[in-house]
Amino acid sequence: MNNELDTLLKFLRFPSVSTDPSRKDDVRNCGQWLCDLLQEGGMQAQLVETSTEGHPAVIAKGPQKENRPTVLIYGHYDVQPEDPLDLWESPPFEPTVKNDVIYARGATDNKGQLMAHALGALSLLEKEGDLPVNLTFLFEGEEEIGSPNLEPLLKSHREELDCDIIAVSDTGMVAPGVGTFTYGLRGIACLEFSITGPSGDLHSGIWGGSVANPASALASLIASLHDENGKVAIDGFYEGVSELEDWERAAWKKLPSDEAESLAITGASELVGESEYSDLERRWARPTAEVNGMGSGYQGEGSKTIIPSTATAKLSFRLVPGQDPQKILELSEAHLKKHLPAGVSMQITPGHCGSAYLTDPQNPAGMAAQRALQKTFPQSKNIALIREGGSIPIIQSFKDVLGVDTLLLGLALPDCEIHAPNENFPVANFQAGIELHRNLLEELSSLT
Amino acid sequence: MNNELDTLLKFLRFPSVSTDPSRKDDVRNCGQWLCDLLQEGGMQAQLVETSTEGHPAVIAKGPQKENRPTVLIYGHYDVQPEDPLDLWESPPFEPTVKNDVIYARGATDNKGQLMAHALGALSLLEKEGDLPVNLTFLFEGEEEIGSPNLEPLLKSHREELDCDIIAVSDTGMVAPGVGTFTYGLRGIACLEFSITGPSGDLHSGIWGGSVANPASALASLIASLHDENGKVAIDGFYEGVSELEDWERAAWKKLPSDEAESLAITGASELVGESEYSDLERRWARPTAEVNGMGSGYQGEGSKTIIPSTATAKLSFRLVPGQDPQKILELSEAHLKKHLPAGVSMQITPGHCGSAYLTDPQNPAGMAAQRALQKTFPQSKNIALIREGGSIPIIQSFKDVLGVDTLLLGLALPDCEIHAPNENFPVANFQAGIELHRNLLEELSSLT
Repeated sequence: MNNELDTLLKFLRFPSVSTDPSRKDDVRNCGQWLCDLLQEGGMQAQLVETSTEGHPAVIAKGPQKENRPTVLIYGHYDVQPEDPLDLWESPPFEPTVKNDVIYARGATDNKGQLMAHALGALSLLEKEGDLPVNLTFLFEGEEEIGSPNLEPLLKSHREELDCDIIAVSDTGMVAPGVGTFTYGLRGIACLEFSITGPSGDLHSGIWGGSVANPASALASLIASLHDENGKVAIDGFYEGVSELEDWERAAWKKLPSDEAESLAITGASELVGESEYSDLERRWARPTAEVNGMGSGYQGEGSKTIIPSTATAKLSFRLVPGQDPQKILELSEAHLKKHLPAGVSMQITPGHCGSAYLTDPQNPAGMAAQRALQKTFPQSKNIALIREGGSIPIIQSFKDVLGVDTLLLGLALPDCEIHAPNENFPVANFQAGIELHRNLLEELSSLT
Repeated sequence: MNNELDTLLKFLRFPSVSTDPSRKDDVRNCGQWLCDLLQEGGMQAQLVETSTEGHPAVIAKGPQKENRPTVLIYGHYDVQPEDPLDLWESPPFEPTVKNDVIYARGATDNKGQLMAHALGALSLLEKEGDLPVNLTFLFEGEEEIGSPNLEPLLKSHREELDCDIIAVSDTGMVAPGVGTFTYGLRGIACLEFSITGPSGDLHSGIWGGSVANPASALASLIASLHDENGKVAIDGFYEGVSELEDWERAAWKKLPSDEAESLAITGASELVGESEYSDLERRWARPTAEVNGMGSGYQGEGSKTIIPSTATAKLSFRLVPGQDPQKILELSEAHLKKHLPAGVSMQITPGHCGSAYLTDPQNPAGMAAQRALQKTFPQSKNIALIREGGSIPIIQSFKDVLGVDTLLLGLALPDCEIHAPNENFPVANFQAGIELHRNLLEELSSLT
C-alpha cells in the first residue's frame, strides 16, 4: 500500500488546474507523468493532443484478446482551482496524510479515484501478466472546464476507443463502506454576464441619483432568477422536466443520509429550496440556478464612494432529464435581456454545457457493477442506488458517440470537500477503489 | 507659475491614500512635507497627531493682528484609492501634465485646490510680509475616510482654531470660467454588510437546490433597496426630507449644464432616477442609496461551479437636509434584517456618517465670497449659486463645534474625474485658485 499511496501523492503534487492559463504546463506535465506510469506498468499508453489551446488526454490499453468484452475506464487528471487559498489547512498541492485521510486538491476529484483504477489494473498486470477484459483507459485533462475537446477526441479515436461498457469513478458513496451505484446525474449549463453603466467609476455624490448603478442592475437580475418559493423564475425553465419515479422516492427515503447530516457537512443553518421535495430529491432530481461568483466596484479595505462602471456574475444551471442545456441558455439570455434595467448595457458569454444522464440500474452491466460493489463492500446490506447532483457531461457524449452506457461507481464521501478548500480522500477509500477495479473487471468479463 | 506648478506636482507624488493601512507612512510623509512647505513660507506650522491609528493634520497660522477677522481655510491632503489601476492612462502618483491639464490622483480632490490656497497665501506673504486677515490653515489627512478624528481635533484645539468664517475649496464649478458658490451639500451614511451561508464554498452540483446561496441572498437584499420607480424602498427613508425652494429650482434651470453634458461626462447611455426631478435636482437635493462595491465566490478567469460561502457589499447613502445619518443607518439595518432570506446569516458594519449642509448664500460672508469669485472670474456674468451632491461631513462639525458657517468656493470641473481613474485638474483652474485665495482674503478682511 505504501508504494501505491506514494504514487497517488506524487500525482497530487501537480497543480493541474485546467481553467488557469498560467498552469498549462503543469497540466501537461501531469498528463505526461500519468502516461509514463501506465506505460512503465505494462500498458500501451500515449499522450493525445486535443487542440492548440487545450490540454492533452491519456489513452492506454492493456493486453487485447478476442472473445472477451472491452471495458473503457474514464477519469480526469485536471482539478478545480484551489482558491480561496487561505481556508486550506495544508497546502493544496502538497498532499498531507492526517489520520489516514489524504488532503489535497484533486484527492477525491478525480485523481484519487482515477489512480485507484490505474493501480488496480497495474497490480493485476504485474501479478497475472494479463487482465480479465480488454481494458482501455481514457484520462482527460479538461473535465473541470467542461471537456470541450472530448467529443471531437471520441470521434477522431472512435475505433481505438470502441468498447462494450464504460466505467467511471467520479461520483459519491452515500456513507463510508456502503457500495453505491449512481444511475443518474444532473446536467449543466454555464454563462457569465457583465453589466456596463458609466464609462468609468463615478463619484457617488456627484452623480448618484441620475446614473444607473451596474452593481444594483446586476443584483436585480440575479434576484429575478428565483421566485419567492425558491423556484427558478425563468420562463420555460421547467418545461419537459422528468418527474421522479415512485420507486426512486421510496428507495431514497431508505438511504443512510438525512438532513442533519447535510447541515453538519455544509455548515448551513437550515436547508432551503422547493418545499414539496426532500433534500436528496432537490439535489439529485431538480434543476437549479446558482450564482458561482460576482463582483463589482471597490472590494478592498475601507470605503470608496463610487458608482462602479461595471459588474459581472457567473451563473450555472444544474439540469435534469428532459432539459436541453442549449435551450436553457437561450431561455436564460432571454430572461436577462427582458429584466435588464434602464441605463446599463449587458454582455452575455455562454459557457460550457452538458446534458443530464439517466440509465437503468437493472440491466446486465448494472447488475455486474452491483455485484462488484457487493464484493468490495461485503459489509453493506444493499448497494445504494442513487442519482447525483453533479454533472459529468461527457457521459452523454459516450452514449452519443460510442453508443454505450456508463457505470458510475463512486468512492467520494459526502465530506470529501470536492471543489472546496481541504478536499480530502480517506486512504481506506483509495484501497477499496483498487480492489473495486479488480472486482469490476472480473464481473464484467462475463458480459456478452 | 512654473515654481508653483512644480510644488503641486511634488505634492501629488505622495500616495497618501488614507483608507489603505499599507500607505500609513506615505500619508504621514505627505502631511510632514506640507507642514514644512508652510513653515518655510513664513507661517507657523505644526503637524498635529489625531489618534494612534489615524493620520496627522496640519495647522498653520499667518501673522496675527488685532481688529481684523480670522479666516480658517480647510483642505485635505489625503486621497481616494487609485484602483482600478489599469484604467489610468498615466500612473496615478506620477503626475503628468498634458495639454495644460494635470493628471494624478488628488489633482483636483483635494491637493490641487488645497495647494492653490496655500500658494496664494505664501505668495502674498512673500510680497507683502503680511496678509489682509488672520489666516489659519487646517489641512487634514482623513477626509476620504470620513474625518473620524476631526471633530475631537476641533474640540481639543478649539482656541487655536477660533475664527469668524471658514472657506473650503473642495467643490465644483458648473463650467470652465464660471465662478461658482456652493451653498448646500448632501450628507452621507456608509455601511458594509456580509452574508454567510455554508461554512465553506460548496460544489454547486452536490448541494445546489438545498443550500441557500449567499450571493443570491446579497443580490436580493440589494435589489430590495429600490422600488420600480427608482425610489429608495427603505421604510422611513424619506421622512423629514426638505423639499427644494422655488428659487432654487428656477436658478438651477438657468445653469450652463444640461443632460447632454451629463451623458457625455459619465458615458452613461441615459440618465435615470426619480422622474419628477431634473438631473441636477436628483443629484444635488435628493437622497440616494448606492452600491459602491460587492463581491462573492469565484471572480477569476474561467468557471468554478460553487455555492460561495460568503458575499459582501459596501453601501453608501447620500442624504439631504432633514435626514439624520445615524437614523438612516438604523432604518437601513432594519430593512436588511427584515428582508434577509432564509438559510443565511448577516453581519452589518456601520461606516462613516456626515450630515447634509445648507446655508444662506446672501449673508455678508456669502456676499463677500461672491465678490471674490466675480473678481477672479470677471468673464462670468453671474456667479452660479448651486448645491452639490457630494459630502463634506466636517462642514457640519465646523458649525457645531466652532459655531461658524463655511464658504464653499470650488474649482473642480465636471470632467475632473474625482474618485475615478484619470483624475485631472486644469492648470488654469490651479492658477485661478491662487488668485481666488488672494481675492477672498481681501474681501473677507472687511467683515466685521
